[in-house]
Amino acid sequence: MLILELIVKKLDASATGVYLITVTPFTDSGALDLASTDRMIDFCLDKGVTGLTVLGIMGEATKLTAEESRVFVKQVLTRVAGRVPVVVGASAPGFAPMRELTDSVMTLGAAGVMVAPPSSVRTDDQIVAYFDMVNETLGKDVPWVLQDHPVSTGVQMSTPVILRILKNSPTCVMLKHEDCPGLAKLSSIRAASERGEVRRVSILTGNGGGLFLPEELTRGADGAMTGFAYPEMMVDVCRAFAADDIEKAHTIFDAYLPLARYEQQTGIGLAVRKHILAERGVIASAAIRKPGPKLSAADIADIARLTVRQTRRLAEIA
Amino acid sequence: MLILELIVKKLDASATGVYLITVTPFTDSGALDLASTDRMIDFCLDKGVTGLTVLGIMGEATKLTAEESRVFVKQVLTRVAGRVPVVVGASAPGFAPMRELTDSVMTLGAAGVMVAPPSSVRTDDQIVAYFDMVNETLGKDVPWVLQDHPVSTGVQMSTPVILRILKNSPTCVMLKHEDCPGLAKLSSIRAASERGEVRRVSILTGNGGGLFLPEELTRGADGAMTGFAYPEMMVDVCRAFAADDIEKAHTIFDAYLPLARYEQQTGIGLAVRKHILAERGVIASAAIRKPGPKLSAADIADIARLTVRQTRRLAEIA
Amino acid sequence: MLILELIVKKLDASATGVYLITVTPFTDSGALDLASTDRMIDFCLDKGVTGLTVLGIMGEATKLTAEESRVFVKQVLTRVAGRVPVVVGASAPGFAPMRELTDSVMTLGAAGVMVAPPSSVRTDDQIVAYFDMVNETLGKDVPWVLQDHPVSTGVQMSTPVILRILKNSPTCVMLKHEDCPGLAKLSSIRAASERGEVRRVSILTGNGGGLFLPEELTRGADGAMTGFAYPEMMVDVCRAFAADDIEKAHTIFDAYLPLARYEQQTGIGLAVRKHILAERGVIASAAIRKPGPKLSAADIADIARLTVRQTRRLAEIA
Amino acid sequence: MLILELIVKKLDASATGVYLITVTPFTDSGALDLASTDRMIDFCLDKGVTGLTVLGIMGEATKLTAEESRVFVKQVLTRVAGRVPVVVGASAPGFAPMRELTDSVMTLGAAGVMVAPPSSVRTDDQIVAYFDMVNETLGKDVPWVLQDHPVSTGVQMSTPVILRILKNSPTCVMLKHEDCPGLAKLSSIRAASERGEVRRVSILTGNGGGLFLPEELTRGADGAMTGFAYPEMMVDVCRAFAADDIEKAHTIFDAYLPLARYEQQTGIGLAVRKHILAERGVIASAAIRKPGPKLSAADIADIARLTVRQTRRLAEIA
Repeated sequence: MLILELIVKKLDASATGVYLITVTPFTDSGALDLASTDRMIDFCLDKGVTGLTVLGIMGEATKLTAEESRVFVKQVLTRVAGRVPVVVGASAPGFAPMRELTDSVMTLGAAGVMVAPPSSVRTDDQIVAYFDMVNETLGKDVPWVLQDHPVSTGVQMSTPVILRILKNSPTCVMLKHEDCPGLAKLSSIRAASERGEVRRVSILTGNGGGLFLPEELTRGADGAMTGFAYPEMMVDVCRAFAADDIEKAHTIFDAYLPLARYEQQTGIGLAVRKHILAERGVIASAAIRKPGPKLSAADIADIARLTVRQTRRLAEIA
Repeated sequence: MLILELIVKKLDASATGVYLITVTPFTDSGALDLASTDRMIDFCLDKGVTGLTVLGIMGEATKLTAEESRVFVKQVLTRVAGRVPVVVGASAPGFAPMRELTDSVMTLGAAGVMVAPPSSVRTDDQIVAYFDMVNETLGKDVPWVLQDHPVSTGVQMSTPVILRILKNSPTCVMLKHEDCPGLAKLSSIRAASERGEVRRVSILTGNGGGLFLPEELTRGADGAMTGFAYPEMMVDVCRAFAADDIEKAHTIFDAYLPLARYEQQTGIGLAVRKHILAERGVIASAAIRKPGPKLSAADIADIARLTVRQTRRLAEIA
Repeated sequence: MLILELIVKKLDASATGVYLITVTPFTDSGALDLASTDRMIDFCLDKGVTGLTVLGIMGEATKLTAEESRVFVKQVLTRVAGRVPVVVGASAPGFAPMRELTDSVMTLGAAGVMVAPPSSVRTDDQIVAYFDMVNETLGKDVPWVLQDHPVSTGVQMSTPVILRILKNSPTCVMLKHEDCPGLAKLSSIRAASERGEVRRVSILTGNGGGLFLPEELTRGADGAMTGFAYPEMMVDVCRAFAADDIEKAHTIFDAYLPLARYEQQTGIGLAVRKHILAERGVIASAAIRKPGPKLSAADIADIARLTVRQTRRLAEIA
Repeated sequence: MLILELIVKKLDASATGVYLITVTPFTDSGALDLASTDRMIDFCLDKGVTGLTVLGIMGEATKLTAEESRVFVKQVLTRVAGRVPVVVGASAPGFAPMRELTDSVMTLGAAGVMVAPPSSVRTDDQIVAYFDMVNETLGKDVPWVLQDHPVSTGVQMSTPVILRILKNSPTCVMLKHEDCPGLAKLSSIRAASERGEVRRVSILTGNGGGLFLPEELTRGADGAMTGFAYPEMMVDVCRAFAADDIEKAHTIFDAYLPLARYEQQTGIGLAVRKHILAERGVIASAAIRKPGPKLSAADIADIARLTVRQTRRLAEIA
C-alpha cells in the first residue's frame, strides 16, 4: 500500500486523452470475475487509454455490495499499478457514505473521485450549495471530477452554475461533460477560462457515449470519458486531433459510428457492450446482474452485421 | 364593449383578499352551462370574494375548444360587470397563442392574465429569459400574474429568480404563490421588497389549495388565489386577519380544514369540489369532462360526514 | 443473538395498529445519538405503537454509512427486545445490496423488511417482474412489506398490479399504502380479498403522513405506518375506530390535523418533526444531516402557536 | 372542397415508405411562409416521400395560433392535392379540442390524424382507457396513428398495452414507433400479428429521428415517419430494402449518419434542420419561433464540414 501511495499521481487539470469507463465483469453465475477484470485493464491500457473510471452507472456500481465494490476497486488499482490514473465514482445520496467511499478508494490508490448532483437539487443556488458541501466532505486533498449528466440526474447545470462551482472548488480539476446538446455549453466554458474568468480545468466528454467526440474536440474538449467496446476509436480520434488531422479524425470516427450508435441505445447498451467485449475475448462472460437487459438473437445478428461492416470500412480507410 | 372598457379596473399591485379560482360548469351531457356560470358568479360575489380567476387548471381550461373558452370568459365578464377584477389564465406553449388569447380576453374586459412557466425551462437563466419573452408578448398595457406552481409545471423558481423576473417586468403586479413548502420563500420575497430591493407586488397564495392560509398571511401574503367549495372560509380568515384577530382566523380555518384537506386530494379534488358546489345549489351538475375522475358512493359518504361535522363545528365557534 | 431470534415474532398479515416510522436521532455535531434512540423507542412504546419501521426516507437512511445503519438497527432491536415487531427499509438499487442488508437485519432480529420499486420500472409487467426478483432475492423466510409510494418513487402501481404482486409473493404480508388519492385503490384491494381473489394482507397507510387516516380506516385499512411527532394521535384514532366510535376518531384526528398538516410539508417536514420531538424531550437534538432543511424563527413560531392551540383543543374534547 | 374529398384516399394499414414530418416555414419576421410551404411540399414529393405529417412537435405546432394552424394545413393539403396522404397531429389535452381539430382537418382533406397519450396517464389500464376515449372522440370514420414517443410524453406503452389498444381500435391503422430502445418491441408487435393475435397495422418508425432505420426495417417496420433535412436518405434506404439489398441500405444509411446524428441533437435539432433546408433552397428562412434555439457560428461550421464530407462519401458509394 505504501508503495502504491508513493507512485500514484493524483488527478489534475492537465488530463487529456481517453479515460475509459469500464464495465464490471461478472461470471455467468453473477459473481465478480477478477481474472476478466485484469484482462480488461490490460486490454484498455494496450489500446492506449490514458485513464480509467470505475464504479460509474455503466459499471453496475449500485448492484454491488459494499464489500464487492471494495474488492473490485482494489483489483483494478493493483493491476493498473499506477500506469494511468483511476477515477472512482463517489456520488451518494448522503455525505457520510460519500466520505466513507472516498476515504476507502483514495487509500487504495485512486487518483480522484467523480461526483454528480442528486436529482433533488434544482435551482442554480441549490446546485452550487450542494457542491459547497461536496468540497467540505472531500476536503483539501482529494481531486474530483464534476459530472454533468442531466439524462441520468435530471439536473440542468447552466454555464454560469458550472463556473460558480469551479470558482468555489479548488480541488475540482475536471468536468465530465455529458449534457446533450452540449456543444454550446462546452464552447462557453472554454471561453470563460480563456478570458481568465475561471481557471482552466480538464474537460472530458461523454455526450451520448462519445457520439459527438470530433465536434467536442473542436470546441476545446481535452478528450473523452465514456465507455465503448472499441476504446481504440476514441484513442485514435484523439490522436488524429492532437496531430491536427481533423479530417482523419472524422473518418476514423465515421467508421465506428454505426456500431457506436447501436451500443449507445438506452437500456440495452450495456448488454451490447459486454457482448462485444466477450466476443473480443476481453471478458469471459457478457453477464449483467439483474435487473438488466438481455440481447435477443436478432440483436446479436444486428451486432454481427455491424461488426463485419465496421471491419471492412476500417480496412478501406487504413 | 366600450362601456366595459371604461369601467374595468385593471389588476394592480394593491390587490388583496380572495381571488377565487372558479370551476367551469357543465351540464350532465357535458355542454357549457351558462346559467350555472351566472349563478356561480353571484354566489362567489355574495360570499365576499374580491376577484375571480378563470381558465386555470381547475377550470378544465384545456378541455374547452377555443370557441368555448371565449364564450365562457365572455359570460363571466358580462355577469361580473366590473364588480371585481377577473384574471384569465394565459399560459400557452407558444407566444402566438398566448398573445391571441390575451388580446381576446383583455378586449372582453379581463383585468389581467396569469402566466406559469412551461416545463421545458429549468435553469435560473432559462426561467428569467422566458419571462422576458412573456413581457415582450404581453406588451406594456396588460397587467399579469406570475404563477409559481412547481407541482404542475415542474419548474422550481428560487427567490432570486422571482426577484429578477419582478425587476424585468414592470407589468407583473402579482405573484400567485403555490410553491410548497413555500413559507420561507414568501418571507424572503417580502423581505426583499421591505429592503427596497424590488417593488412590492401583491402576493396571493394557493399553496395546497389554501391549506396554509393562516401561516401565509402571517408571512405577508395579501390573500388567497385558489379554489374551494367554501370560499367563505378564505374570505372570513382574511377578514379576521385584517382585523388583527389571528386566533380567530385560525379557529375559522381549523373548522374547515378537515373538508378542505379532503377536497385538495390530487386527482379527485375537482370532482369533490363540483359535487359540493352542486349540493350547495351553486351549479346544476357536478359533471367533469373526460378525462376526469368520478366519485364513488364511499367518497360521497365521506364528504357527507365531513360536511355535517363542519356545520356542527362552525356552529360551536360562531 | 440466539435469544433474540427465539423471541422475535416475524411480521405477518394480521398486523394492525400503528407502525411508527422513526427518525434517526443525531447529536448536534451530527453523530448517531444512541441514548436518544433508546429514549425514542421507549416513548413510542409508551404511546401505544404496535410496531416500528426504521431506515425509511424519514429516517435519513441514505445519509448513514453502512456501519452506522448496522449500529442503529442493532440499537433499536436491542432496546425493543421483541416487544413489538420492527420492520427495516431494504429498498436498494441492486439485489446484491438488498440481500446483504436483509440478511444482516434479519439476523439482528428484524421482523421483516420493506421494499419499494425503483423509479426505473414503469409498465405493469416491469413492476410485476421486479417484485418476482425481490421474492427470489429475499427467499422463503423473510416476510416483507410492499411500499406503494408514488410521490417518492414515481412508480404508479394500479390495483391489478398490486393484486398480481400479492399472488406471486407468498411472503409479502403487508401493503404500505401511500398512494394519494388512494381511497379508491384501498377499497378495491379490500374488495378483491373479500371476493377471495387474493389472500388478505395487512394494509397500513401513510397517505400524506396519516392525513387521511379516518377515511382509510373506514375503507378497510388495518392501521397506519407513517411518522408524526404525536404518535398518540394515530394510536387513539385507531383505538376509537376499533371501538366503533367513528365520530370520536374524527374528533381526535381533527384536533391534531392543523399541526399534522404543518409537519407534512414536503422538504421541511422532517425538521418540524425533529423539532417537536426535541421539544417533547424525546430526542436530545433536532439536528438533521446535510443536505437537509433548517427551521427559521418564523417556522418555530408557527409550530409554537399550533402546539398551544392543539393542547387547548385536546382539553376541550377530552 | 368537394373535389378534394373525392380524391383523398384515407390512411390505411397498408402504408409503407417515408411519411416525412415537415417543418413549418416562417419568414425572418416570424410570419407563416406559404410560398416556402409550397416549395417544401414539392421538394418532399420530388424526393420520393409517400406521405407527409404536419403539426407535429418538430412542426412547432404549439407555437401557432388556431387560425395559423388552419391556414397552414389548408395550404399543405391544397398543394399536395391528393398526391400523397397527409397525416395531421391531433394530440390535445382535452377531447373537445381534439375533436374540433380533427373535424376541421378531415374536412380540409387530411388522410388521418395522429394521437399520442398525455403525460398524465401512467398505468397500463389508464393508457388503454385513454385510447378508448380517443376512439369515442374520433368516431368510426377517421383513421388514426398511435404515436409511441416516451421521450416527449413520458408514457411507457408496453407491447401488451399496444396490442390491447389495437384490439380496441378498429380505426387505428398505424403505429408511429419511437420508443428507444425499441427494436425488441417492434419485433414482438410484429410477432403478435403474425401469430394472428392482432390485426396487422402499418408500423413507421421515428426512433431517434431515423437513426435506427436499417435495423427497424429488418425487424418488420414498413418505413419511417420522421424528419430529416435529407428525406432522400430514408427514401433510398427503404427502396434498397424493398429490393432486398440490405447491405446497400446500410451503406446509404451510413453515409448520411454523421449528419443525421448531428441533426438529431435534442434542443437544437430543429434549428439544424431548418438551416440545412434553407441552404438547400427549400425554405426561404431558417427562422424558428420563440422560444427556440439559435445556431452559433461554430454550429454552422460543424454542419458545413459534415455536409462536405457527406457529399464526398455519397459520391464514393454511388
